[in-house]
Amino acid sequence: MDMDQLLAQVVQDIEPQIGSGVVADYIPALAQVDPAQFGIAVALPDGSVHGTGDWTEPFSLQSISKLFTLALALSENDESIWPRVGREPSGNAFNSLVQLEYENGIPRNPFINAGALVVTDHLAGVVGDAADSVLDFLRAEADNPQIDCDDDVAASEAAHADRNLALAHFLASYDNIRGDVPRVVDQYVRQCAIAINCRDLALAGLFLARHGLRRDGSRMLSPGQTKRINAVMLTCGTYDAAGEFAYRVGLPGKSGVGGGILAVVPGRCSVAVWGPGLDKRGNSVAGVAALDRFTALTDWSVF
Amino acid sequence: MDMDQLLAQVVQDIEPQIGSGVVADYIPALAQVDPAQFGIAVALPDGSVHGTGDWTEPFSLQSISKLFTLALALSENDESIWPRVGREPSGNAFNSLVQLEYENGIPRNPFINAGALVVTDHLAGVVGDAADSVLDFLRAEADNPQIDCDDDVAASEAAHADRNLALAHFLASYDNIRGDVPRVVDQYVRQCAIAINCRDLALAGLFLARHGLRRDGSRMLSPGQTKRINAVMLTCGTYDAAGEFAYRVGLPGKSGVGGGILAVVPGRCSVAVWGPGLDKRGNSVAGVAALDRFTALTDWSVF
Amino acid sequence: MDMDQLLAQVVQDIEPQIGSGVVADYIPALAQVDPAQFGIAVALPDGSVHGTGDWTEPFSLQSISKLFTLALALSENDESIWPRVGREPSGNAFNSLVQLEYENGIPRNPFINAGALVVTDHLAGVVGDAADSVLDFLRAEADNPQIDCDDDVAASEAAHADRNLALAHFLASYDNIRGDVPRVVDQYVRQCAIAINCRDLALAGLFLARHGLRRDGSRMLSPGQTKRINAVMLTCGTYDAAGEFAYRVGLPGKSGVGGGILAVVPGRCSVAVWGPGLDKRGNSVAGVAALDRFTALTDWSVF
Amino acid sequence: MDMDQLLAQVVQDIEPQIGSGVVADYIPALAQVDPAQFGIAVALPDGSVHGTGDWTEPFSLQSISKLFTLALALSENDESIWPRVGREPSGNAFNSLVQLEYENGIPRNPFINAGALVVTDHLAGVVGDAADSVLDFLRAEADNPQIDCDDDVAASEAAHADRNLALAHFLASYDNIRGDVPRVVDQYVRQCAIAINCRDLALAGLFLARHGLRRDGSRMLSPGQTKRINAVMLTCGTYDAAGEFAYRVGLPGKSGVGGGILAVVPGRCSVAVWGPGLDKRGNSVAGVAALDRFTALTDWSVF
Repeated sequence: MDMDQLLAQVVQDIEPQIGSGVVADYIPALAQVDPAQFGIAVALPDGSVHGTGDWTEPFSLQSISKLFTLALALSENDESIWPRVGREPSGNAFNSLVQLEYENGIPRNPFINAGALVVTDHLAGVVGDAADSVLDFLRAEADNPQIDCDDDVAASEAAHADRNLALAHFLASYDNIRGDVPRVVDQYVRQCAIAINCRDLALAGLFLARHGLRRDGSRMLSPGQTKRINAVMLTCGTYDAAGEFAYRVGLPGKSGVGGGILAVVPGRCSVAVWGPGLDKRGNSVAGVAALDRFTALTDWSVF
Repeated sequence: MDMDQLLAQVVQDIEPQIGSGVVADYIPALAQVDPAQFGIAVALPDGSVHGTGDWTEPFSLQSISKLFTLALALSENDESIWPRVGREPSGNAFNSLVQLEYENGIPRNPFINAGALVVTDHLAGVVGDAADSVLDFLRAEADNPQIDCDDDVAASEAAHADRNLALAHFLASYDNIRGDVPRVVDQYVRQCAIAINCRDLALAGLFLARHGLRRDGSRMLSPGQTKRINAVMLTCGTYDAAGEFAYRVGLPGKSGVGGGILAVVPGRCSVAVWGPGLDKRGNSVAGVAALDRFTALTDWSVF
Repeated sequence: MDMDQLLAQVVQDIEPQIGSGVVADYIPALAQVDPAQFGIAVALPDGSVHGTGDWTEPFSLQSISKLFTLALALSENDESIWPRVGREPSGNAFNSLVQLEYENGIPRNPFINAGALVVTDHLAGVVGDAADSVLDFLRAEADNPQIDCDDDVAASEAAHADRNLALAHFLASYDNIRGDVPRVVDQYVRQCAIAINCRDLALAGLFLARHGLRRDGSRMLSPGQTKRINAVMLTCGTYDAAGEFAYRVGLPGKSGVGGGILAVVPGRCSVAVWGPGLDKRGNSVAGVAALDRFTALTDWSVF
Repeated sequence: MDMDQLLAQVVQDIEPQIGSGVVADYIPALAQVDPAQFGIAVALPDGSVHGTGDWTEPFSLQSISKLFTLALALSENDESIWPRVGREPSGNAFNSLVQLEYENGIPRNPFINAGALVVTDHLAGVVGDAADSVLDFLRAEADNPQIDCDDDVAASEAAHADRNLALAHFLASYDNIRGDVPRVVDQYVRQCAIAINCRDLALAGLFLARHGLRRDGSRMLSPGQTKRINAVMLTCGTYDAAGEFAYRVGLPGKSGVGGGILAVVPGRCSVAVWGPGLDKRGNSVAGVAALDRFTALTDWSVF
């Protein structure tokens, strides 16, 4: 199978859905994005990367950053995050406080906002600044020092951070945020505001397809840890649509409201897609459609 | 009926319960209070006040302050607070966030923490500093300029304010806190930290028994507004035990975790009781028992 | 004050609201009622009764029956129902199952459907058939042997009983229904389907204004028990609008979706109103307005 | 790899955990099972089956039956069940009513009790008796006409069916059970009470590893449907521990409180394990441990 031909086929098949959905509008900086864009990139274990469409156009990383903070928190065989956050799907909205209250401040998983705040707090305790740590990792894996935080998005997020501040103070009331709350939220906001394109994102996620090995061949995670992150992605990676995503796409994936999705085919490749129009659960309409076609054409669903 | 004899009888009848219950321990400054204290005071419409026991010993006002911020917010016929807070019992703990989420940021009533934060925010918008406004009112009604905030309690509360900061940021995310969140919480904490004794509290609550008239004869609330505050006290004034309190005592009342309760017999008197030991719902064990005896002996239940 | 003149004044004042609201339509038999009807009756401690409008037109008792099953369950100083049902407002819809699950099968109060099913089950265990027991009581107090169950309404309710069957089986799973579930629900449905008019309802509720004495002078409840039922009515008697009702009307009251409300002025009178149009919380629009005017004109609010 | 040696290795490795956990005790018939039993069987695409331990000892199928009713409901390309039941993990207990109420009677997935009752109701509408249909299927796939319902377990379940009757009546109140409620619950109870051993269960689940083909080579489900059932198993198949199961085992699996688990390695094999001792989320302690070892030794995790 020629990967470039395959990606061209995928884009052709989903053409009618490009531009569908609604661009995230909770902050002005995201609401201005042109919805009629679409990009896809596939990174292979040898480090090569193929792409088509708007695959070199940067978009806002948003919740996909949660995947990288989790991986960084687990690196060097550090499993100490687990008493502070669960691994179960939540059945509630990504920014709900209800579950937290019923379960005494332990978020259900690392990919809802509450869980990600706990992971950011933990990582900050290890490395100092979680957002800088994510940036360094992305730049190294994509071999692109230009990747950076979008200051407009970060400022816009910071001005609309009441829900995340509420979550973080609530977690702190259960002693599950240990750092200074505004500082943890600031790092969380900056990691979400990183701008990246499909090419770089696919390369940055390749370690999950390579059983934990980074670009330079060094080991970031053990094969067991890598499998486990993939499992958490599959069960919890796409907000309240993880079941639907598993059902349609059949791959571990993590989405963000910037319209990006990073998916993993263990042992074979990582795939980054981007389309700004979202469905009502916050996942890219064109992105999910493209991954659906991708697994149909390759038969690379894990099921 | 001689009021002094009556109060002596009440204290004698509840003697076995003085010292029962558990002193609030969520902040160190409250946890140190000696539980074996008890005071009761009754203020009559003519401005006279009777008391017995530790009725001149100051205690922490805590949630009883919510009653005064509400009355001050409603004064001068200002009913503009109501679209921002309901008047229904909550069925949830006083500091729960669950209901807020299901009802889009409108607290069920002014006497749960979320509702009180909204009232404080509103009052701050009118008078500048809600805590100072409460202090001024208490001093005037009790004719005691010594009433003041307990700085140790305030500092202790401020150091444990994560739950209230979470509530306030959450409300702000629904645009239902309009002031600066940390500033609103600071005022809320200071109004809760006011130290007052039974004598002064009974006098300060007398306007509710006098259909809205203050000590100096000026009108604070209309008779209709006064009845309505009494109705909210009866249905919502004692946390998740309002039904039980209505059932046993049969009077409008507002309790605080400092162990105080202010109750109202419309047209007849206001009653302040204090006993630091709390039942599991946060109401003073000896205080509720004393009010129960008081209405039994006087037959002044509203039912 | 002349009571007939007073009632004429009340009706004149609320004229514009007669016919407002929406008739209950969850069963066909109720949906056919003409909304432009209104009646009011007041029963005095001497047994006399005054009324105006459609005060002799029968309507469906519905949830007001819960008040009579509770009183019958408590008669002869039997307080054994309380471990099985609470006395707190619920903060949830009258037929919600959520609270039951979080509180292990103990309904919050006797006036939500779950609580009423428990009371019916208890009463059935004492007297055999709870609905027959309510009928006997109503007939005796109103001195009207014609009062009866409306078989069309009962049949219609029975055909739409899935929600109540769900509640009852759920309670049974916590061992809080002891009788046969379909039989308990059948009795509950029949007590709700009783047809009664304002005159008879006011007379039937007079024992609550007479500190527990029945028409024939015999004691049904102690004065303390009577006060306590009045307290439960005030805090829990009008679905999720108990706070609002206390705030506007200031009397203990119990409403039903047939459009009736029974209110009590302790020591003075019982008042029955009826208007089929309901507000969105299930209380009669004209009925609440009439009681609001009644307490304004008489100054008989308990607050 | 020799499968018999592999299974012997698995059993040896988990030996210390056999007998751990607590036998289900909500019905007497299950509470009597000896916890110190363990069996495992693997069925290969060629129809051969390997096993060790108590692999021919029958146990109660319980919730694993939900997998077979779902597959039967989807057979012949019938996707009409999906508007009536979701495909998302629930985040609540398997028999919770809370989510149903917030989502208007649409169960989150087919593997919680509410969802399974809807599937049973649907299947009953197609085939007459859902439990008989499951029995026929199991007998055919396992080539064992002796498989049958355990009448003691069925009677015991029927006597403790209040929670399921509550769920079913609640669903019926949303028009999401269309058949007679007690009859649907009866069929549900009988399908759960089927007794089966590991050998027969592994054979019965082989169609999920064979992309939808039955023992006789006929097509039951399309490859796409089969993948989708596997996806639902992975995200929802092990109660509130689906994330943990995905994380540890990395295979689609469906568990039951009888102590059985059926897992699928797409394209390779089906695995049935049985150990009656359950963890606090209702999954077999020894069974999960065995599957964990199985994927570790084979490297057949899907991730």
